[in-house]
Amino acid sequence: MKNVKYGKCVKCGKTYEATPDLTTCECGGILDIVYDYDYIKSVLTKEKLAARNERTMWRYRELLPVEESTEPTPLRVGWSPLYEAPRLSKELGLKKLWVKDDGQNPTASLKDRASAMAVAKAREAGAEVIACSSTGNAASSLAGNAAAAGIKTFIFVPSRAPKGKVAQLMTFGATVISVEGSYEDTFELSKQAIDKWGWYNRNAAINPYLSEGKKTVGLEIMEQLDWQVPDYIAISVGDGCTIAGLWKGLKDLYAIGFIDRLPRLISVQAEGCCPLNRAIQTGEPWHPMEENTLADSIAVGVPRNADKALMAIRESNGLTVNVSDAEIMAAQKLLGTRCGVFGEPAGVTGTAGVKKLCEQGVLGENDTVVSVVTGNGLKDVANAIKACGEPITIPSDMDRLLQAFRDHHIPEGDC
Amino acid sequence: MKNVKYGKCVKCGKTYEATPDLTTCECGGILDIVYDYDYIKSVLTKEKLAARNERTMWRYRELLPVEESTEPTPLRVGWSPLYEAPRLSKELGLKKLWVKDDGQNPTASLKDRASAMAVAKAREAGAEVIACSSTGNAASSLAGNAAAAGIKTFIFVPSRAPKGKVAQLMTFGATVISVEGSYEDTFELSKQAIDKWGWYNRNAAINPYLSEGKKTVGLEIMEQLDWQVPDYIAISVGDGCTIAGLWKGLKDLYAIGFIDRLPRLISVQAEGCCPLNRAIQTGEPWHPMEENTLADSIAVGVPRNADKALMAIRESNGLTVNVSDAEIMAAQKLLGTRCGVFGEPAGVTGTAGVKKLCEQGVLGENDTVVSVVTGNGLKDVANAIKACGEPITIPSDMDRLLQAFRDHHIPEGDC
Repeated sequence: MKNVKYGKCVKCGKTYEATPDLTTCECGGILDIVYDYDYIKSVLTKEKLAARNERTMWRYRELLPVEESTEPTPLRVGWSPLYEAPRLSKELGLKKLWVKDDGQNPTASLKDRASAMAVAKAREAGAEVIACSSTGNAASSLAGNAAAAGIKTFIFVPSRAPKGKVAQLMTFGATVISVEGSYEDTFELSKQAIDKWGWYNRNAAINPYLSEGKKTVGLEIMEQLDWQVPDYIAISVGDGCTIAGLWKGLKDLYAIGFIDRLPRLISVQAEGCCPLNRAIQTGEPWHPMEENTLADSIAVGVPRNADKALMAIRESNGLTVNVSDAEIMAAQKLLGTRCGVFGEPAGVTGTAGVKKLCEQGVLGENDTVVSVVTGNGLKDVANAIKACGEPITIPSDMDRLLQAFRDHHIPEGDC
Repeated sequence: MKNVKYGKCVKCGKTYEATPDLTTCECGGILDIVYDYDYIKSVLTKEKLAARNERTMWRYRELLPVEESTEPTPLRVGWSPLYEAPRLSKELGLKKLWVKDDGQNPTASLKDRASAMAVAKAREAGAEVIACSSTGNAASSLAGNAAAAGIKTFIFVPSRAPKGKVAQLMTFGATVISVEGSYEDTFELSKQAIDKWGWYNRNAAINPYLSEGKKTVGLEIMEQLDWQVPDYIAISVGDGCTIAGLWKGLKDLYAIGFIDRLPRLISVQAEGCCPLNRAIQTGEPWHPMEENTLADSIAVGVPRNADKALMAIRESNGLTVNVSDAEIMAAQKLLGTRCGVFGEPAGVTGTAGVKKLCEQGVLGENDTVVSVVTGNGLKDVANAIKACGEPITIPSDMDRLLQAFRDHHIPEGDC
């Protein structure tokens, strides 16, 4: 890879040759992929990018850690829509708000970006099996992307994973192990099994290439905004890999001169599980927490990528905000009714944080904000119904309809 | 609209000025929008289209019945991926097979194409409310597309509609009336309410513009295939509007010289509800049927657009095939494991038909086929779990994992 120098430990600084099966440093630290930005600048320009027909994450090949000969993966991952949300922006009192709907990926979450990268690197490694543990979305995205590429998967999920995600896994033909316990228990079992059988490892904090897939969400946001940098980008945070990936993408663009400043990150966690935000807020090291939130995808009590995530938030001079489950449910309804975007609980948590910061007066009429929706609400229908209620149920009869409208206080003038 | 001549009744031939609130003919017949192809040829070329950046259904404006001043609707509808499926093609014994995944639309079904058109035309009509009855997908797509555009919706669904679709409706803020009865009962109540309150009508067989939205799936397939016409396009059929729309798009392209022949349609219905295919197979007029299939979106015993659908199948010298619920479930698994595409039961019914025709020797090694997946499996998780089974559930313990692999006959050599 001409564009990649090496993998470098974020803890001890030791460097490693960027082989496809790279995992963590011998000191236990997470590796970061280091690029040769001079080389990248010599082969990639904004004009070249604009002329490209490929509308997937692979349009950013020069910034991705893959061999030139590596084929794009089969599913259409990335280039999700960035919607301007003028009505919601006005309602919240912001200057401008955009919603990046990453639930519009093939398996309906941002995790497709990391899983497509895992499939590309597993192919380079000649692997026949990929494994991971996941709260659900990394799992279903791996299962889908690997199935399309003809690669077998072994997947470990906590038994609390919503039915939608499990249905995806089974449909994609993964061997699924549902672990009775926390995400931490799930991760541990997957680790032992991966060690035993030597499967290609798609655990996000272990495999350093996965953040590089995730960073494409940041690359896209900036290209879709025609390189005009917003003041803030808000995103929900669990394991820490996604916010770290987003930040990496933004820094890449800054390094090659595509953007002239960096936005500030807004790290949004659930009140019931916010070990990373707590660390920032208290200035202390992070400590494990219980996993008490309905936002299952970010219910991560022991974040596996704390180092990179904390570094990203701090480097960006970022904000942190914790939201309650009620605030998450309200954000789900808000995005649905104002933007026609249906996000899963963890998917809308970023927007819940933006709303809260607006109410607190931290964000206001001078601020431009991008809020990333990380997963589709169809993955967790039970919680959506809790948030938004049940329909009016009646027989096919006009009198009953009129009565129902009266019962539900729908004035005929509204009809 | 310079590109549109008028609406013309498919039954009696009477023509109507193409006003935005056009419905059916006074004779009860369905209207078809008639274009001025000479005008369209003078303003649209393949090269012009190829240079266009808009990757939504609105890239085909010259072929759509909207005013030049009408804005594209807010959500990213259309330009869904067309995947080549070499492994599945080989397995079925076809020359070539492509899968058009229309579950990758904003509300996760092909119906977004019609609903975006409804929103565009409702805006032209100055309407503040849009209403429809639907088996579920038209409903959720209308609710989402209208919410994004700031338009209110009243929506009627049969109470059997899967939870995923209802959750979407509620999240998008629609007023939802769940009707205890068949789709026919639901349709009747919506009709009475629309008559009473004068809402903009998004019932697909009533509003002639909706097929024109749906036809963009055909326009896209052909552009994505670089105008190389496949031998067949297979699609599931319920109300009849979708296959009629698909055919209209293909005929448009033929009329303006973008393609030099027309593919044959494959109309696939569920054995338990196949009134249109039965009419073709027996040569008799269609008769109502019970709605006995798990493929809820095509469980339509009284198809509202029978005329246009039957005409499309016949004109294309099309094939018809009926599939059992077991065959639908098998197709769901097949698309998931071979292509990484997760379709809802009605969504994969087209592919189930292709598989059956291959097994019967009707299709074979000389044939090129496009199979349209019309909706996302996440909309109906309960049936997906029925089709694909449950995961292995164990505590976080290696011995239990090894035991589970033995119990499930997963040889260690496969790991």
